[in-house]
Amino acid sequence: MAQRKIDVVLDSVRRLIRLGATANLVNLLQKQHPADLAQVFSELNEKERTTAFALLVERNSKLAMEALSELGPEAGAALLSGRSPEEIARLLHELPSDDAAAIVDYLPEELRASVLELIEKRPGDEVGELLEYAEQTAGRIMNPKVFALSEDMTVGEAITALQGSRDVEMVFYLYVVDARRHLVGVASLRRLLLVPPSTPLKRIMTTDLTSVRADTDQEEVARLVASYNLLAIPVVDEENKLVGVITVDDVIDVIKDEATEDVYRLAGVAGDDRVFSTAGESLRKRVPWLEVNLVTAFIAASVVALFEGRIQQAPALAVFMPVVAGMGGNAATQTLTVIVRGIALGELTWANTRKALFKEALVGLGNGLACGIVGALVVWAWKGNPWLGAILGAAMVINMFVAATAGTLIPLALRMLKIDPALASSVFITTLTDVFGFLSFLGLGTLFLRLVERTG
Amino acid sequence: MAQRKIDVVLDSVRRLIRLGATANLVNLLQKQHPADLAQVFSELNEKERTTAFALLVERNSKLAMEALSELGPEAGAALLSGRSPEEIARLLHELPSDDAAAIVDYLPEELRASVLELIEKRPGDEVGELLEYAEQTAGRIMNPKVFALSEDMTVGEAITALQGSRDVEMVFYLYVVDARRHLVGVASLRRLLLVPPSTPLKRIMTTDLTSVRADTDQEEVARLVASYNLLAIPVVDEENKLVGVITVDDVIDVIKDEATEDVYRLAGVAGDDRVFSTAGESLRKRVPWLEVNLVTAFIAASVVALFEGRIQQAPALAVFMPVVAGMGGNAATQTLTVIVRGIALGELTWANTRKALFKEALVGLGNGLACGIVGALVVWAWKGNPWLGAILGAAMVINMFVAATAGTLIPLALRMLKIDPALASSVFITTLTDVFGFLSFLGLGTLFLRLVERTG
Repeated sequence: MAQRKIDVVLDSVRRLIRLGATANLVNLLQKQHPADLAQVFSELNEKERTTAFALLVERNSKLAMEALSELGPEAGAALLSGRSPEEIARLLHELPSDDAAAIVDYLPEELRASVLELIEKRPGDEVGELLEYAEQTAGRIMNPKVFALSEDMTVGEAITALQGSRDVEMVFYLYVVDARRHLVGVASLRRLLLVPPSTPLKRIMTTDLTSVRADTDQEEVARLVASYNLLAIPVVDEENKLVGVITVDDVIDVIKDEATEDVYRLAGVAGDDRVFSTAGESLRKRVPWLEVNLVTAFIAASVVALFEGRIQQAPALAVFMPVVAGMGGNAATQTLTVIVRGIALGELTWANTRKALFKEALVGLGNGLACGIVGALVVWAWKGNPWLGAILGAAMVINMFVAATAGTLIPLALRMLKIDPALASSVFITTLTDVFGFLSFLGLGTLFLRLVERTG
Repeated sequence: MAQRKIDVVLDSVRRLIRLGATANLVNLLQKQHPADLAQVFSELNEKERTTAFALLVERNSKLAMEALSELGPEAGAALLSGRSPEEIARLLHELPSDDAAAIVDYLPEELRASVLELIEKRPGDEVGELLEYAEQTAGRIMNPKVFALSEDMTVGEAITALQGSRDVEMVFYLYVVDARRHLVGVASLRRLLLVPPSTPLKRIMTTDLTSVRADTDQEEVARLVASYNLLAIPVVDEENKLVGVITVDDVIDVIKDEATEDVYRLAGVAGDDRVFSTAGESLRKRVPWLEVNLVTAFIAASVVALFEGRIQQAPALAVFMPVVAGMGGNAATQTLTVIVRGIALGELTWANTRKALFKEALVGLGNGLACGIVGALVVWAWKGNPWLGAILGAAMVINMFVAATAGTLIPLALRMLKIDPALASSVFITTLTDVFGFLSFLGLGTLFLRLVERTG
């Protein structure tokens, strides 16, 4: 449903751009939600997008900037980068400072510096301050405009303060601070409605609240918000002074990004390598990983080289050795994915490691038998040689058992060494399953050939 | 910090269980947040967990059940399944009905039926009704206890109604319905505070609101909540009558599950195959995928078989052919991951497909050159044969180009056929990169050998 509505809007936008019907176009754009506009922008080609954005900025710069922010900081920065620093600084003022900071971060180096300089001149602007926090920390994604009440207020005074507040990003929790802005408690909006206005705020607030420090990792922030089902979490400095708030919508973005990061790392792709990164950028990010894999591929090749003589003698060995190695790789990928995701979701802990290892080893043996028997029968039928079949079957059982235990142990070991298991595991695993695949199959084949030579 | 606090609690819980100090144990458990208790439970071994849960249930069944619910429906159901249907039905009553329904769904078949029967006898219990909605739809994850106001109320009456409400899961938005419970508008809690009590609710509500149907896919629900930055979304039936509400915390769970699904599918693992599924279950789920891969591995082997004679003549071909095939597979996995995730995040649309294909093809060529040149030099140095090196380099360029274009086209084609690209792409891709890897390297090798034979 929603998708179709967007398609209708998209078609109209394209038509109106083609016709040059700017008045109608602006009217249509103005009626859309920022998130829908972002969707429309992302489907337009670059020229259409620039045109539509330029028109909307003139008429309704707030909506235009909200849509740009929803596009994501990278695409948003790209859309702005043709404009003057003065204009960019003015437009960024339409956004909450956390969103503005994210965009500034992606502007081209020189432009970024001029924009920041202009922004920092404005009294009370926090964009520059936010950018001083390290990337991927709470400070970077928080909104510094947090609504706070004094602990000396009554409920009636609190309601008056709330009525007077403007420009406050979604208020769900009312944070209570002391005279020096130390965070001392929290009250819910609903609670305010349930008591007489003369009640002291102190009496209805709860002092048992979860907060994070500005330097807390954003992944930890997401974990806290998700597991305590919070709508927002207050951010404090090292003295427990309230400096900002992170709302659940920002946390959702973090969760999505971290999930992408996990998928990407398992495949050896950098986190910021997207569909529409330039070819040069993607190359620069992907080649190093491929070169590492090239080294490991040659290590595996050197195992095959040990058996060159035997392959010359029985070239059927060369035909089936990739089957054994490849199947080990596939089984290892399954195990690795379950383990890495189990670590990420917190299901796999130190306490239950042994149980997981035992289980995966059992699955490895089972997989090996299930695939080894089928494989053996196929080879027997194909080459008419039951021995070759049996050798392939046995090698497959060995390799899939190795794949399963290594697929469990390697990510756990990497975690112990504080290396991201998603990042490095797959290189080790592929090398191992290739080496063991070739070694077990060619090794068993060699043993058999020697046996035949002796008895023959 | 938070992690460390949990570890302290965990150690104390273990010690108190060992000492049999039940009174102290219950006191300690009672002081924890449900999410922290769930974390503690998940780290205990099975016997400890059963003991701790049994003690807590007796003293504070609500907290015990909340912790059990946070453990996830599968683990939660396992923890309950030793109890009588009557007791389970009573305990489930402590939970919101969407959470209770999720747990019931994972109980063993027979127990599930008896529990459901008992639950459905209770007047006004919605657990059974929720389970009638299809899995992964809005109906399944919504809370049917939604707080709604009549459109004829004044703001003052609305506040009184709100004060009288109990047991309502987090109220953020006040949904407004007509006499027949059709959803007509929404008002924010904050808005209520800003106007005189005599104002008609109709005047301050907005009628432009986003809702979903009970049969809407949960992924679409998550997309809407995330892109419009909502805290909750109302669920309506086919006549637009309000039947429930989905809050952002449930949406976060959906987003996490869908991310896991994507990672899993790329690796050929079923969505419900977890670290602690039994070995039998995991085997049953993983073997079919492996057998499919076995078929494709033999297809690739049959390509090698075409060149058996040449391999006998030059066994070095067998040493390096897995390098070409494997590197193609690695490059294809990178492309595939970027494309599949781009589809999932909505960044890749029909409009910009050609751009993506062109870019990936370029990256494929670049990758091929970068790895092919290094590979060629290694082979030359190793075997002292520049020709063999050149053949490997050329084959690698060809295979990595094929890998990149296929890695882009196959998931897009699958999406066009309405097959999940994450699920089926990797089998096709591995087959293709193996076949093309062997074919290009052994084919070029054969051409070279023939050339030498003729000129020699």
